Amino acid sequence: MYEYDADTAVSPIGGGAYRGTVTDRYSIGPYPNGGYVVGVALSAVAAELPHPDPMSVSAVFLRPCDHGPAEIRVETMRTGRTVSTASASLFQNDVERLRLLANYTDLSRSVGPTVVTAVPPPLPPLEECASRGIAPAPNGLIPTIGARFDTRFDPATVGWAGGRRSGRGEVGGWQRFADDRPLDTAALPLVCDGMPPAVFNLVPTGWVPTIEYTVLVRARPAGGWWRSWFTTRALIGGLLEEDGEIWDGEDRLVAQSRQLARANPPPPD
Amino acid sequence: MYEYDADTAVSPIGGGAYRGTVTDRYSIGPYPNGGYVVGVALSAVAAELPHPDPMSVSAVFLRPCDHGPAEIRVETMRTGRTVSTASASLFQNDVERLRLLANYTDLSRSVGPTVVTAVPPPLPPLEECASRGIAPAPNGLIPTIGARFDTRFDPATVGWAGGRRSGRGEVGGWQRFADDRPLDTAALPLVCDGMPPAVFNLVPTGWVPTIEYTVLVRARPAGGWWRSWFTTRALIGGLLEEDGEIWDGEDRLVAQSRQLARANPPPPD
Repeated sequence: MYEYDADTAVSPIGGGAYRGTVTDRYSIGPYPNGGYVVGVALSAVAAELPHPDPMSVSAVFLRPCDHGPAEIRVETMRTGRTVSTASASLFQNDVERLRLLANYTDLSRSVGPTVVTAVPPPLPPLEECASRGIAPAPNGLIPTIGARFDTRFDPATVGWAGGRRSGRGEVGGWQRFADDRPLDTAALPLVCDGMPPAVFNLVPTGWVPTIEYTVLVRARPAGGWWRSWFTTRALIGGLLEEDGEIWDGEDRLVAQSRQLARANPPPPD
Repeated sequence: MYEYDADTAVSPIGGGAYRGTVTDRYSIGPYPNGGYVVGVALSAVAAELPHPDPMSVSAVFLRPCDHGPAEIRVETMRTGRTVSTASASLFQNDVERLRLLANYTDLSRSVGPTVVTAVPPPLPPLEECASRGIAPAPNGLIPTIGARFDTRFDPATVGWAGGRRSGRGEVGGWQRFADDRPLDTAALPLVCDGMPPAVFNLVPTGWVPTIEYTVLVRARPAGGWWRSWFTTRALIGGLLEEDGEIWDGEDRLVAQSRQLARANPPPPD
């Protein structure tokens, strides 16, 4: 079993409820990554719904998660022929931390026209990109999530690591799972939150907590290194949007994401 | 009272539930516009929450709405100091049509840095743009919503109206309410779904129903004509994303939206 599947495993306890665990393996300092916690909740949703692929997932983060046990309660709202829909809540110590709405479908059965004018992100070749591992972010937080991926950053987008913010809200690179887990639709909600925030290139920040997070899964990904590209074009009064695109090993757009997040002030020197 | 406020008015019936009406004044053929129905539901949310401005709204459309009475049931999930959060369901004839998650805040009290690298859409001057009123779309459906706005389309983005699809998934123009209602944060979830779909420039379609719809409200808008700009960059197997930006009369980005929709086949000749 690959580590992401073990780290998001859930077991049913009846009535649409499941037990799972928020591990400390996808964290930024003390804070579990939002995409990972969504992934834990979606394991329960996937067990309840008849369709195999998440198509859209929208989550609101109510209170920070802790590392430890969690209970996920799923409400199935619709099981149609092509789309099924659920609401899910993740609780820890009986406190709701996260609520999401998810549409599932079978992406292998999509019918209709295809016209894609989007183009893959302008990354340098893999060999010109570099890993950071779990090197601390400028805010001093250690990202254990960095060890889950083999990430090769576009050097033009990680100047912040050396104190040179580019002024362009962009972070991108090549990625694969560190344990060679194939990319699939279940993992895309993690991957869409799987790089340091693009706002690091705009201003000094502390933790950048997600307030709302939406992922659209557009296709089942092919194998190989995928490309992740995140942009922030508007930081307004400390709030920012971050848009993400994931392109698979065969140059196809497989997911689009957007989150609203808060750029907390940097820690004092 | 302005017409949008009358058309989204709700009255409390206790326990977080409200009665409202889905009018026939924001429809595309028989189908009420998704942004409008979200607006009706948000009137109930706004009545329940202590903060004045929607900050993020994510909705899933479960079943098509009808014209007529509706009941909205609001569950308040969090009332924090800076953010409050609710789930809301819109029912008609005891069938749930729409579920949404909404974060509210007071945007006049946002604190933190502002860096905006996004630029307003490249619209021609107002006098070079033209109205379409409620002229039928290529799919033959009459958009009564067209009468709620004074819309001046960028001519380069409405070639589809004359049978010349541009091949670029873009629709944009200048807009104001037909009754001079000032733009505010409550109306932005309507405005972010207030133009014909950009996919009209890519392929022939029938109705384009929304599956998931997320709006981020970024600032309280100033007055005057606003600019709306919608893009679709990936139509894949009949499913498309549509991204929207609304820029106010003082050139500020006030809302970003994204929806997942289905391009249904065109009606037979």
